[in-house]
Amino acid sequence: MKKILLATTALVGFAGAASAEVTISGSAEMGIAGGNRGAVTQFWTQIDATFSMSGTTDGGLTFGADIDLDESDGRNTTIFPTIGASPAFAGLTQGGETIFISGSFGKITMGDTDGALDWAAQEIYMGSAIADDHSSHAGAYAFTGLDGTAGGQIARYEYSFGSFAAAVSAEIDTSIANNDVFGVGVKYSGDFGGTAVGFGLGYQDNSVRSVYAVSANATMTNGIAINVGYADLDAQAVGANDTWAGIGVGYTTGALLVQANYGTYDLLGGGTVDGWGLVANYDLGGGAVVMAGYGTGDVAGGDEIGATYGSDESWSVGLGLSF
Amino acid sequence: MKKILLATTALVGFAGAASAEVTISGSAEMGIAGGNRGAVTQFWTQIDATFSMSGTTDGGLTFGADIDLDESDGRNTTIFPTIGASPAFAGLTQGGETIFISGSFGKITMGDTDGALDWAAQEIYMGSAIADDHSSHAGAYAFTGLDGTAGGQIARYEYSFGSFAAAVSAEIDTSIANNDVFGVGVKYSGDFGGTAVGFGLGYQDNSVRSVYAVSANATMTNGIAINVGYADLDAQAVGANDTWAGIGVGYTTGALLVQANYGTYDLLGGGTVDGWGLVANYDLGGGAVVMAGYGTGDVAGGDEIGATYGSDESWSVGLGLSF
Amino acid sequence: MKKILLATTALVGFAGAASAEVTISGSAEMGIAGGNRGAVTQFWTQIDATFSMSGTTDGGLTFGADIDLDESDGRNTTIFPTIGASPAFAGLTQGGETIFISGSFGKITMGDTDGALDWAAQEIYMGSAIADDHSSHAGAYAFTGLDGTAGGQIARYEYSFGSFAAAVSAEIDTSIANNDVFGVGVKYSGDFGGTAVGFGLGYQDNSVRSVYAVSANATMTNGIAINVGYADLDAQAVGANDTWAGIGVGYTTGALLVQANYGTYDLLGGGTVDGWGLVANYDLGGGAVVMAGYGTGDVAGGDEIGATYGSDESWSVGLGLSF
Repeated sequence: MKKILLATTALVGFAGAASAEVTISGSAEMGIAGGNRGAVTQFWTQIDATFSMSGTTDGGLTFGADIDLDESDGRNTTIFPTIGASPAFAGLTQGGETIFISGSFGKITMGDTDGALDWAAQEIYMGSAIADDHSSHAGAYAFTGLDGTAGGQIARYEYSFGSFAAAVSAEIDTSIANNDVFGVGVKYSGDFGGTAVGFGLGYQDNSVRSVYAVSANATMTNGIAINVGYADLDAQAVGANDTWAGIGVGYTTGALLVQANYGTYDLLGGGTVDGWGLVANYDLGGGAVVMAGYGTGDVAGGDEIGATYGSDESWSVGLGLSF
Repeated sequence: MKKILLATTALVGFAGAASAEVTISGSAEMGIAGGNRGAVTQFWTQIDATFSMSGTTDGGLTFGADIDLDESDGRNTTIFPTIGASPAFAGLTQGGETIFISGSFGKITMGDTDGALDWAAQEIYMGSAIADDHSSHAGAYAFTGLDGTAGGQIARYEYSFGSFAAAVSAEIDTSIANNDVFGVGVKYSGDFGGTAVGFGLGYQDNSVRSVYAVSANATMTNGIAINVGYADLDAQAVGANDTWAGIGVGYTTGALLVQANYGTYDLLGGGTVDGWGLVANYDLGGGAVVMAGYGTGDVAGGDEIGATYGSDESWSVGLGLSF
Repeated sequence: MKKILLATTALVGFAGAASAEVTISGSAEMGIAGGNRGAVTQFWTQIDATFSMSGTTDGGLTFGADIDLDESDGRNTTIFPTIGASPAFAGLTQGGETIFISGSFGKITMGDTDGALDWAAQEIYMGSAIADDHSSHAGAYAFTGLDGTAGGQIARYEYSFGSFAAAVSAEIDTSIANNDVFGVGVKYSGDFGGTAVGFGLGYQDNSVRSVYAVSANATMTNGIAINVGYADLDAQAVGANDTWAGIGVGYTTGALLVQANYGTYDLLGGGTVDGWGLVANYDLGGGAVVMAGYGTGDVAGGDEIGATYGSDESWSVGLGLSF
């Protein structure tokens, strides 16, 4: 006996009495994935469901929490060495859960959430590929900053004022090293004669490394969007990623979205690692999108620092489904 | 604060606006299970929930996906050696998820779905037992064919025309052996003067083994149902199952269903392994069914090929609940 | 595309047709936790969701089942040694699932449910702390009796008559020792001139130990509540907990609840282990509660039996959220 969950919009009248609620959304992908991912082109199938919880206090504060079904298996056991137990369900660890409370004072979010750097800087990537080929090549970067270097359990406070928003964040290191991560970020979004413009600036420090990132993006009325980003990663060892710069140029018209991106790391002591990606999405409506992605980039080898790297490529094509 | 999910039928008017939705159904079993399953008769409790996702594109294609809660723990780690991570949530592996899209062109299903042989051939078993005793004895077979011999991630295309339907399927082997599995199946269902009749025929090949299966079933207006099946399993080693044949005879009257089944394997090089099962179900309505099951069959021993096997039996009785 | 689940009360008219349903509720905690829990004060984030299934047979019996999302990861692998598989989804083991059927005959519950002792005796603790500091100190006890000593898969039958209720329970030991656990419990709840009064008495035996427990509680109209409990744990080894006694005194006024509790174990062969806890809850409405907890108690050491133990303390403060 199957049960149906109703679309939010259809039931505002009935749901008004609910002070707290759990909603479930889902996603799935089907297709094929190839390139240097494996010896042969393979089938690709993936699924997930998200539990989104929300409520409002008598005083008007809103609060909520969410977790994905794929975060309820036992992965992340490097954090939680008991075999098979998810760190999402233990208080001192995180395994994907996020929890927030917000009001006129701003918003506090805790758990597996972005540090202030990642919160402020906007990714250069647009669209989706079932295997994320376009955004996971050797030159790709996602403004992760120092997030996760101390277990990944983050607390972030953010506040908006007009077109600006600012955030501070902390991640506590419980090891002897005590390398707590602190971060600060600001971002701006505005409209200049129809061109949507955004800027982001973030900084994080954990007593060992000081990382900062900037992002800028503009989406014009003709459908062209340009996203750029830069990060100083403060490498501590020769051969480690020291800085990153990237650009994405996209175009959206009707149901179609295409984007090309390029990113490059400068390594400490010399040498670079770079790559580029392509993505095309065609929206079939109702939650179904045809997705094609391609990525290629340098492949690091033992003695290639400073020299020309080998090349690697991957691609995927299929359907991305949202429910 | 508990939330209720509504029955589909009660809310057609409201749900009409939803283009994509997630529904949740559940099942549970409680009872006792005994026989040679363990030293003593034991309690039996089991539960599951299914996330069923569905949607429709603007052009009228329907698509969907589903996964069970019991597929979101970390089992199947032979496929996915990272401790505790479910292969359902990674693209190149399957851990129980299925995803489909269908339209006038037919239907494509990917993930943990039946190959064309299993899709075409109908099981001989009717009813349910909480511990599946009736359908898991030594002589039982479920038309699994070669499914799972290459990781279990299957793509199947099917098409219906009148009372007939046909399917082809593939499962890609990423090992050096490259033993991809291909399958084809056809099935028929019709009505002859009130007797519901079905036939199924399936074939699979993985370059090593060629397996085929046939099934036939008839359900008469007097409540008697006869199901038969045969499979050529193309054993590659002496002592392995080479062919299988089975029959099930059931009777349904009002809330009561009873069935007996018998199955027998011929082993390569001589000898047989067989077994039989009994099941009785009484439907209490509302999703609750009283279930009793019994199974008994040969027990394989090291040097018994060609001789009489020992005997094993198991039984269970309890409630099967659907939500 | 998010979906909303509706509050039960708003939809009685529509849900009336549903014979079986699955509802989902959630909980989350965010805050900080300190004391001797770790080297530093840490963030605390935790989340869970509960699947509650219910139905009614045509004859008017009600049945149901539930499982939590945090029980669908692969923990409890001491019971289920296959890496990553949750014992909730296998029949002969339990991993948190409970299943019941009830009618005029009483109620039968199976799975991860309380034995009759724990069912009858009421905990002395009130309120909640995000890290349960107040109820998990060295002197705390939760009337677990012998539950879990034989795998934790329990069957309990209970029956109510007026202000009284009684239960019997069994837990089957499948090991060679065959130490099945049997239990019996009775409880009473009544009203004496506005004072709500409760008593509980439970007994369990597994052929090795015979454990009993008593509890009594009174909640007065002025908001003061007194809970007391005692348990004879029948220790089998010198230094093991032999008896336990505890008391909790709480006060509720408007949105505020505070409680202090104290518990002490007498060890076989002499010596005691005790501790006390404090909790304060302030209800913000809508499912959000501000929670503060504190606990402190003896720390057992290798040679301290009969002497003064060291002291340990823990505390937490944060938000507990229900959805």
